[in-house]
Amino acid sequence: MPKKSVKASGQLTLRRVAIDTYRENVAYLHRECETYRAEGFQALSKIEISANGNTILAMLNVVDDAGLVAPGELGLSEQAFAQMKLEPGTAVSVAHAEPPASMEALRKKISGKRLDAKEYQGIARDIAAHRYSKMELAAFLVAADQTGLDRDEVLFLTQAMTDTGTRLNWHEPLVADKHCIGGIPGNRTSMLVVPIVAAHGMLIPKTSSRAITSPSGTADTMEVLAEVELSPDKLHHIIRHQRGCIGWGGTANLAPVDDVLISVERPLSLDSPGQMVASILSKKLSAGATHLLIDIPVGPSAKVRHMHEALALRKLFEFVGDRLGIHLEVVITDGRQPIGRGIGPVLEARDVMQVLDNHPDACDDLRQKALRLAGRVLEFDPDVRGGQGYAIARDILESGRALAKMNAIIDAQGRKARQPSLGPLSFAINAERDGTVIDIDNYHMARLARFAGAPMDKGAGVDLLKKLGDTAKKGEPLYRVHAEFQSDYDFALRMTKEHGSGYTLGAAEDLPKAYVEF
Amino acid sequence: MPKKSVKASGQLTLRRVAIDTYRENVAYLHRECETYRAEGFQALSKIEISANGNTILAMLNVVDDAGLVAPGELGLSEQAFAQMKLEPGTAVSVAHAEPPASMEALRKKISGKRLDAKEYQGIARDIAAHRYSKMELAAFLVAADQTGLDRDEVLFLTQAMTDTGTRLNWHEPLVADKHCIGGIPGNRTSMLVVPIVAAHGMLIPKTSSRAITSPSGTADTMEVLAEVELSPDKLHHIIRHQRGCIGWGGTANLAPVDDVLISVERPLSLDSPGQMVASILSKKLSAGATHLLIDIPVGPSAKVRHMHEALALRKLFEFVGDRLGIHLEVVITDGRQPIGRGIGPVLEARDVMQVLDNHPDACDDLRQKALRLAGRVLEFDPDVRGGQGYAIARDILESGRALAKMNAIIDAQGRKARQPSLGPLSFAINAERDGTVIDIDNYHMARLARFAGAPMDKGAGVDLLKKLGDTAKKGEPLYRVHAEFQSDYDFALRMTKEHGSGYTLGAAEDLPKAYVEF
Repeated sequence: MPKKSVKASGQLTLRRVAIDTYRENVAYLHRECETYRAEGFQALSKIEISANGNTILAMLNVVDDAGLVAPGELGLSEQAFAQMKLEPGTAVSVAHAEPPASMEALRKKISGKRLDAKEYQGIARDIAAHRYSKMELAAFLVAADQTGLDRDEVLFLTQAMTDTGTRLNWHEPLVADKHCIGGIPGNRTSMLVVPIVAAHGMLIPKTSSRAITSPSGTADTMEVLAEVELSPDKLHHIIRHQRGCIGWGGTANLAPVDDVLISVERPLSLDSPGQMVASILSKKLSAGATHLLIDIPVGPSAKVRHMHEALALRKLFEFVGDRLGIHLEVVITDGRQPIGRGIGPVLEARDVMQVLDNHPDACDDLRQKALRLAGRVLEFDPDVRGGQGYAIARDILESGRALAKMNAIIDAQGRKARQPSLGPLSFAINAERDGTVIDIDNYHMARLARFAGAPMDKGAGVDLLKKLGDTAKKGEPLYRVHAEFQSDYDFALRMTKEHGSGYTLGAAEDLPKAYVEF
Repeated sequence: MPKKSVKASGQLTLRRVAIDTYRENVAYLHRECETYRAEGFQALSKIEISANGNTILAMLNVVDDAGLVAPGELGLSEQAFAQMKLEPGTAVSVAHAEPPASMEALRKKISGKRLDAKEYQGIARDIAAHRYSKMELAAFLVAADQTGLDRDEVLFLTQAMTDTGTRLNWHEPLVADKHCIGGIPGNRTSMLVVPIVAAHGMLIPKTSSRAITSPSGTADTMEVLAEVELSPDKLHHIIRHQRGCIGWGGTANLAPVDDVLISVERPLSLDSPGQMVASILSKKLSAGATHLLIDIPVGPSAKVRHMHEALALRKLFEFVGDRLGIHLEVVITDGRQPIGRGIGPVLEARDVMQVLDNHPDACDDLRQKALRLAGRVLEFDPDVRGGQGYAIARDILESGRALAKMNAIIDAQGRKARQPSLGPLSFAINAERDGTVIDIDNYHMARLARFAGAPMDKGAGVDLLKKLGDTAKKGEPLYRVHAEFQSDYDFALRMTKEHGSGYTLGAAEDLPKAYVEF
């Protein structure tokens, strides 16, 4: 079918409306406006606004107050106004928005069919141009999730998501990155791997995310120590000078399709292997990474619960990574319990700094995992002999060079004058019997830390006093919950009463073996 | 998990903002507002607004203009303000909206599992309370579409959709209705069945829909003759006095969940049997129907293309209808071609009025189909002998009583002082060879009528001059396209050039038999 041509329409005068509608462009037309009546628009119609060759899409709101927008004017919310890049008073024209060109491909996916590379390119282009509504995005994701994407489709989607954004070029042959697929509370290895690797001189331009469903993201924890909301220019400057950075990635606008898809996947708890691989690899390719280490934790309450799933996921990463020209290695790690002791920004920052300080109380599991990951990243360096990475990483850590690099990065990002402190309201959960800790439920501990206020309240969270294999006497504390507000304290306490501690005590021989020695 | 209790929050002063946001409640807070900052809201956050025991949900927009909304004020868009039913200046409190209680059931459906009656009740309740975003709605519908609903699930969903709305009670033992599942252009039998049945004295409180993807809905065609946007009170008054009505159902607010789901199904072209049955039956049950006739047209370009699909759909209607206590009959009809000659509001209204007028040019297929359907509806009357309905319907039509009833209904709804006329721009599509019409593509003809401007331009559409089985000489016109605007004329013409006429001419013996004799 030919596309319906856009009907000509009257000219309107552009006006800025001081309303912040975040990711959604909103346009305002007065109900008595000729154009509104002639075009047959209605509130929530999607319209296309054009002037001087620039076109944006916006959702229409209808105004009955000429003080806000008068007939003959077109109001735009702040973000939409900024996108138009025009002065108030400029003449603009409006028309019904075309439906996205890729709607046919979307319907094909909804009906359960396989799509080809060109169809994924079309879908990614429309998503990047904000032509998809949230509804269409959800339909695409649920359909892709339910019918499953075959590995060629994952490749096509990853390629399309990468092609629709900017791709940074660091003009260096080796640009390293590491990424964990998530699901393990307290797993703040990036805040150790980045300073170690950067201290070695390798470029590691890692941007981090904030927590969405977890009790803290790397960016949330780093924010206890330093500013993380950095402009792209500042981010670049720090990376060039420090070889690494631990900033929030939200301002960089890399792989924009991924950001859009995530905004739908998270609230719907969609987390299929295909989407995960496409999301992670498109982001890393866009950020200019040439070498990438992927961490897949496996455990009974991790995202990946069985070794065969971890292997299938590893092969999918390898298949797509190889075809897109990124040097990719996957490590499968022990995901039976949280890493470190603290869960929540302040507690995790404490754990990280204790490792960097070579403090005697530093969590050994966090330290070991970070050293092994850093070692594997260092071995991307052709001058590092295979198997020597770990020793180099340990040397960088023990010599204090990692700490010095971390301090330099903190100062470059902007050191917090006053660090937030631990939540003053706290209660302990005690062992109800003697025994050995044989299970700690990752999901339960993450939820508990969130209920206590993390990550919004930086000082809220859970401090684990016993880990797997530790013995506890009846009445001895297993962990302590910290909150900043009474309501959160009450709420977290109620959760432990209703749903148990998340810990299982038993006989030492019942402690399940780690799936892997990492 | 316990639900997170809503945190207490500061009081704000209610203000009405003169912005029409249609079905989406929008709340406005000033960026400098204490509450905005304290609560950690952001633009597009979903918030809950409460006062005097009344609570609504709204999406947040952040305002930087104190003239619009000042710090300490809470602005509400027009619909949201109306829902709060409070005076400006009233103290209200705001909090983060709870996620919908049925999110777990939604995730279960997304993961491909079967839901029980209680879970469908929960989902319907949340949808009715507008707790689902468009994104969540699309996820639910695509998941239900792809995993398929078993017949018990269709029953649960229908029941839940009916329970969450008002159910009209006409206080009569026999309240009739008819419904066609759609897909056949020109199929305006309701405008004949309603006056015939109402003239018999049977109550038929039918509300009609506007076209969404078709070139005209019954409400669009009726609007050529009479007002169709009637208040619920007026609708009731007309039905009581005339025994029938042909108004637009959009104002009645029956089965609100269905309206919400349709707003997502249509743009995504979702049309699964389960959704269709739940949608139709919940609407009819809510409208108080006790007896319902369902029309399922079958044909190669109809919604249902094979007899076995029609039978499966019939059994699904019967299963759910029987369990929900509605007397339901299904007729499977000939859906090989459009019904009548006209496609588009003015042309269809002409066809309907010619049948009512007993005009010699009246379309026989429209007349016959309407009489048969009306006859079946009349046989719901215990006093009508089985098999006599058709003769009674024909007598009502031929005696002029149906026309008189139609005129009474038109006058009651409000007769149009000036009827719209046929689009003045027209072109004919001529036969390219001698032959018999052996196929007319319903989908193609519907698209063509829409491209010509229907249903928005009442006079636009397609007038069929040849129907199945008619012979045509080369150069003889097959149909004529009417448009009101040059751009639509050009566009429709281009479509016929690029995609053909939609007609197939061949040998008389190649004309496929009707699937059914109805």
